[in-house]
Amino acid sequence: MQLAPCITMVTLGVADVAASTVFYEKLGFARSSASNEQVTFFRMNGAVLGLFGRADLARDAGVENSMPGFSGVSLAHNLPSEAAVDEAYAHALACGAKPVKAPEKVFWGGYSCYFADPDGHLWEMAFNPYMPVDGNGHMALPG
Amino acid sequence: MQLAPCITMVTLGVADVAASTVFYEKLGFARSSASNEQVTFFRMNGAVLGLFGRADLARDAGVENSMPGFSGVSLAHNLPSEAAVDEAYAHALACGAKPVKAPEKVFWGGYSCYFADPDGHLWEMAFNPYMPVDGNGHMALPG
Repeated sequence: MQLAPCITMVTLGVADVAASTVFYEKLGFARSSASNEQVTFFRMNGAVLGLFGRADLARDAGVENSMPGFSGVSLAHNLPSEAAVDEAYAHALACGAKPVKAPEKVFWGGYSCYFADPDGHLWEMAFNPYMPVDGNGHMALPG
Repeated sequence: MQLAPCITMVTLGVADVAASTVFYEKLGFARSSASNEQVTFFRMNGAVLGLFGRADLARDAGVENSMPGFSGVSLAHNLPSEAAVDEAYAHALACGAKPVKAPEKVFWGGYSCYFADPDGHLWEMAFNPYMPVDGNGHMALPG
């Protein structure tokens, strides 16, 4: 068989689902009515973003809930200009995000910054002049 | 401002971009021609999946490349039946995935399993009878 190229949901394990929900709502995401005390769902541009207790997520997967440093994962949100990256970064910090890397020109020719959510999950805000995003925030990636 | 509910790319930091690319190609994903030696792009159902050196990703974000245990992140791929979950799990193991949790009925009423990619990134294969996926693999999440 071949697995279809599909990500249905990205789940972030968090220390406090309610507090992280407030953070993401401040950022601008709308909590789905399918959410409950244990899990929050945000309808994104296709995939769903889920917030779930970190210990619960480890238990669900059957792995040890060891405390990480760098998770080895980042989520990118592409924007149409350098100014939009600056604005998104300032907005995120105003919402309580942790500053990780201020907006700057980066080695691949774009312009980006990183902030972290309350649990350290990394978000990159990026302007990529070579790969514009469509109205749904999807990159026009060649086949 | 409000940040649009958008994930453009999910980047996984990996020890060996070439080896991980082979793993994901075996699973069934097609490498975009925009890929190069440093980074691999897979066009998924909207968001892009990126593979990038773990040390490079840490450097890009400006964070320490500490070695994690549990990353606190999982990527879910939803499927239309329990049988499809069983099939996807067997396929992933045949591709060299590490078994993490064999398919089983789970507390939220669905049926799921977890495997890990060569770097331990967790993928859940899930059948959710309450939230069917559309032809693009997107959940019909209420607003």
